[in-house]
Amino acid sequence: MTSASSHLTPCLRHSAACAAGLLVLVAGHASAQTAGPAPLEVPARTVPVPNTVSPEMQRIIGAPLRQNWNIQPKTGEEWKGVAETGAAGTIKNIPGMLERLKVKVERTTIDGVRAFVVTPETIRPENRNSLLIHMHGGCYVLNPGEAGLPEAIFMAGFGGFKVISVDYRMPPEAYFPAALDDGMTVWRALVKTTDPKNIAIFGTSAGGALTLEMVLRAKQEGLPLPAAIAPGTPMSDTTKTGDTFYTNELLDNVLVSRDGFCDAGAKVYANGQDLKDPMLSPVYGDMQGFPPTILTSGTRDLLLSNTVRVHRKLRQAGVEAVLQVYEGQSHAHYIRDDTASETKEVFGEIASFFDKHLGK
Amino acid sequence: MTSASSHLTPCLRHSAACAAGLLVLVAGHASAQTAGPAPLEVPARTVPVPNTVSPEMQRIIGAPLRQNWNIQPKTGEEWKGVAETGAAGTIKNIPGMLERLKVKVERTTIDGVRAFVVTPETIRPENRNSLLIHMHGGCYVLNPGEAGLPEAIFMAGFGGFKVISVDYRMPPEAYFPAALDDGMTVWRALVKTTDPKNIAIFGTSAGGALTLEMVLRAKQEGLPLPAAIAPGTPMSDTTKTGDTFYTNELLDNVLVSRDGFCDAGAKVYANGQDLKDPMLSPVYGDMQGFPPTILTSGTRDLLLSNTVRVHRKLRQAGVEAVLQVYEGQSHAHYIRDDTASETKEVFGEIASFFDKHLGK
Repeated sequence: MTSASSHLTPCLRHSAACAAGLLVLVAGHASAQTAGPAPLEVPARTVPVPNTVSPEMQRIIGAPLRQNWNIQPKTGEEWKGVAETGAAGTIKNIPGMLERLKVKVERTTIDGVRAFVVTPETIRPENRNSLLIHMHGGCYVLNPGEAGLPEAIFMAGFGGFKVISVDYRMPPEAYFPAALDDGMTVWRALVKTTDPKNIAIFGTSAGGALTLEMVLRAKQEGLPLPAAIAPGTPMSDTTKTGDTFYTNELLDNVLVSRDGFCDAGAKVYANGQDLKDPMLSPVYGDMQGFPPTILTSGTRDLLLSNTVRVHRKLRQAGVEAVLQVYEGQSHAHYIRDDTASETKEVFGEIASFFDKHLGK
Repeated sequence: MTSASSHLTPCLRHSAACAAGLLVLVAGHASAQTAGPAPLEVPARTVPVPNTVSPEMQRIIGAPLRQNWNIQPKTGEEWKGVAETGAAGTIKNIPGMLERLKVKVERTTIDGVRAFVVTPETIRPENRNSLLIHMHGGCYVLNPGEAGLPEAIFMAGFGGFKVISVDYRMPPEAYFPAALDDGMTVWRALVKTTDPKNIAIFGTSAGGALTLEMVLRAKQEGLPLPAAIAPGTPMSDTTKTGDTFYTNELLDNVLVSRDGFCDAGAKVYANGQDLKDPMLSPVYGDMQGFPPTILTSGTRDLLLSNTVRVHRKLRQAGVEAVLQVYEGQSHAHYIRDDTASETKEVFGEIASFFDKHLGK
């Protein structure tokens, strides 16, 4: 602590000797380190709500940390109660979303897997043959049923695409790899009737991870790949590895901490499986041959590192991969409020990317 | 403070009532706020050096905060002393860089403006007609002469391009808009002999801002525009506006704080000019018609917000603009050590982008 606080001592004399110290870091990058880099001690700070985002986004960013972010349910049964309570709150907002975005939703099952068909009033002519698959988020344990729909509704409404949203099994109904298996069942079924060149997969958080996992699995099984994917702030590493797990801790008002509820949920879903398995932490998967990918995150996102790590890994594999990072946003803020201009911007970017790559 | 710390209270009972609170944020985004969003109180934290980057980058990220980051020289004369001391340290590393990257440097003047011609031993055949203009960084007051060259050498060496690095005037020799004027003099001279379709402009920090400012100025003056630009972590807003000025404060070990030396340097250069002038804060400029742009930043960068804000503004203006954000890096870490794999990756990405857009 002594050495960290001494770095904070201001240079009170504007002398040459004082100035000389200023650029030591520039001049000799390695000279300051002999015994391995020490952790950084960051003092307490007051962080204002940014004025560089819309008023709607300011409300989302300015909300207090999620209540009870550090609950740690240990079983699927406990999570079911948490999930149902949360779902009730989300579901009551759905009719308003459907009305504002002119989208309708129907339940279906696809080879036994529960799903929703989400259709905009107007499918853009160039999207008439396109189909999107949506994998919802929620740490593999939250957002059952209609509660998983907001992002699918935003994509259908803002993008003018038909979307199949997969209501995959979650604990306690089933554990790893059930969510992925359900996604793959839907994938296998859809590619029988729709050219995979016309299909994209997207999702946020656990849904972003499942999007990546589905491509990894399709590669393994020799199945066709989608034409494009859009993993939003993917839970690409469930081993608590990634710099922004630390730098954005207690700044991200959604996930809040690497030791929070989301980590607890992923662990229950994993059910003892090694968390480094690429089907739980897809950043460790082989991304050679991946389809064009658009990634979305925010500057306060606890998973910003796990988004940019996937971006870098895709680029290193020679994949066309683009990154969108939004000012001030914590984890998945862009699927909160369809009236925020940033929400429309996020889904507009993804839609343009899909336009560019589908049907080619 | 009381209300902020109450949000941190763990939910100790795994009851339904406790669980019910968990998803309030998901369910009703605006319900928690009635009197306008409050700032976030972030407690002190210990942030380890990430293990998700190369050992070379770990040394750079793990270095202590820049010594005397908060000096506040108030005049050009004072800055000159600081700049010369810093330059001496940087310049002694240049011969090694030139040797490792097989690059040579010659002084020149272009219509009276000091510059360097930076030439790789091997110019790639597809780059034979291409020319890059480099605007160095240093808060408009640092890195005079050869001290501004490392980034130009990295670009020439890793990218296989011929580079003209502009040694623009700085305080106390001249003040705003001298740096920009010198860049424009070089631009006007070069487009007389080289097709602007074969020229790109790049630079980091103040050099990233100058890159953007040169395009704004060329638009204003009806001059041709470059084929592409690469502003790295641009000082696009010198008014201390941008969320990561707060969220990454004391995490970024280079700039450290919005109230640090760099802010002081920009103010001396501005010499009384309104800092919101787009020629000092280009994020406020009109970006319609900009050439394809590749932006670079890092997750700990104090200017991450000012990089992503430029990216968003370019995209909103319909410009082809791509964003690269590197794990764990503070401001301009990618121009520190040419032996770090991330450095090669950054300049490789920029070179590929230039390849795609030059000569078209």
